[in-house]
Amino acid sequence: MSGKPKFKKITVVGVGLLGGSVGLAAKAADERVRVVGVGRRQSSLDKALAAGAIDEATLDTAEGVDGADLVVLATPLRVYEDHLLAMKDSLAAGATVTDVGSTKSLVVRVAEGVLGRGGPFVGSHPMAGGERTGVQFARADLFGNVICILTPTARTATRHLRRAEGFWRTLGATTTRMTPAAHDKAVARVSHLPHLLAALMVMGQKAGSIDLAGNGFLDTTRIAAGSPAMWREIILTNRSAMLAAIDSADEQLMNLRDLIELGDGAGIERFFALARKRREALVTKRLRRRE
Amino acid sequence: MSGKPKFKKITVVGVGLLGGSVGLAAKAADERVRVVGVGRRQSSLDKALAAGAIDEATLDTAEGVDGADLVVLATPLRVYEDHLLAMKDSLAAGATVTDVGSTKSLVVRVAEGVLGRGGPFVGSHPMAGGERTGVQFARADLFGNVICILTPTARTATRHLRRAEGFWRTLGATTTRMTPAAHDKAVARVSHLPHLLAALMVMGQKAGSIDLAGNGFLDTTRIAAGSPAMWREIILTNRSAMLAAIDSADEQLMNLRDLIELGDGAGIERFFALARKRREALVTKRLRRRE
Repeated sequence: MSGKPKFKKITVVGVGLLGGSVGLAAKAADERVRVVGVGRRQSSLDKALAAGAIDEATLDTAEGVDGADLVVLATPLRVYEDHLLAMKDSLAAGATVTDVGSTKSLVVRVAEGVLGRGGPFVGSHPMAGGERTGVQFARADLFGNVICILTPTARTATRHLRRAEGFWRTLGATTTRMTPAAHDKAVARVSHLPHLLAALMVMGQKAGSIDLAGNGFLDTTRIAAGSPAMWREIILTNRSAMLAAIDSADEQLMNLRDLIELGDGAGIERFFALARKRREALVTKRLRRRE
Repeated sequence: MSGKPKFKKITVVGVGLLGGSVGLAAKAADERVRVVGVGRRQSSLDKALAAGAIDEATLDTAEGVDGADLVVLATPLRVYEDHLLAMKDSLAAGATVTDVGSTKSLVVRVAEGVLGRGGPFVGSHPMAGGERTGVQFARADLFGNVICILTPTARTATRHLRRAEGFWRTLGATTTRMTPAAHDKAVARVSHLPHLLAALMVMGQKAGSIDLAGNGFLDTTRIAAGSPAMWREIILTNRSAMLAAIDSADEQLMNLRDLIELGDGAGIERFFALARKRREALVTKRLRRRE
């Protein structure tokens, strides 16, 4: 990247798959950037240093954010508040704070509570990651062609929003904006409920059926290989949207059950035809985006 | 293959993806075998001939099975009875009849009804195929490392069962035996319900959520790209097992809903951890089978 660097020092709090990939991607996009990693354990920081994901490491959040232009929270959601409280008085004037969390209403509420409304926090959710965890799977291109949802509120300063958007675009992501509540409802449908149903498909097998599982079953349930602790946190921080998504899925399932019980072949075929058509439209749209 | 050929003439009734692949695989396994294709439309037969999946073609079922050692039904289930009635008086003495249908109770009942109990019919279900249809996707290795379930009844002659098993093994499949009812229950859980849930996941999206779909969502719903007409038939010929599988999934979903509503983090994590563990065991087992 030529011209004046947008960020001279980026601090990543949490150096797992996502935090590590933020470091690698930021350094790949602009070699002049200095990435500081904040971690809970020296061993994780050492791994991140060895992977080249960070240039400096510290166990102290306040020390880590000192002088940073941009701070990216990439820890489990449950420790956000601790880190935000720890960094509050050390943040440089004008520094932007963002994150990579999978749910946003609670996160934004907590962050605005600690850092102040109209403060430096802008919620972000880059839709990348997958089943793997740990900096050893971090990649500079993890955010390439990925959607990153930013969740500004009425209190978010435009300057910080633009800086956060610019950052994710530099890393290769496509950005979009949603309210925290709209984000949480949407991801409950498109990500959290599918994960739950995939786990349910695995758990629904018996001795006689599991051995018959083919590639279709393995693909369909691949997302069930994700970290149980992470999914516990995602679902518990998105409870009302999850319950609504479950109720909606249950209603659809019961409608299908009726069609099957009644032997309504035309209705069943219509349902599958519509699902196939919608999925095809989605695949076409995605392929177009990648061109 | 050396030695005496097991089958000199094989007739495939229905020359789509599965029928075409049976032809290609049988010819790849033993070049001396002669494959006859029976189809409803000359255009389909011409495509199968061009693809090298069959050596001869006819629109007449009785003519097609004349002199065959083995007949493989690979049409939609709804036309099985017509073909069985048409071939009944032309089958060679000692010929074995099998199929590739995805549900078995109804099929076996119909086939034993037409060809006689203790007759030449042995139900088979090679668990291969996927979303694509048509002979243009047929492959000689479609059945390689695939599980093929044979569903003999108390009336099935051992000789025919062994011949059918031998045939599928020659094509690269691993064979296993189940009763038709046990087969239908098992595939309702491991294949039919997952397909239905995948379609339901697609249909559960709204304008705001579908655009956020990532690779995980595309993988999870890939099986929803299957033929609606085929799935209509599969589900309608497996109604009672489907209803039982749906009820069992619904009960699990409601249990999960309770855990989420109660905020039972430990319970949620336990569920996901168990699902992951069971899936990992399955993946390990499958990898071992391929070695």
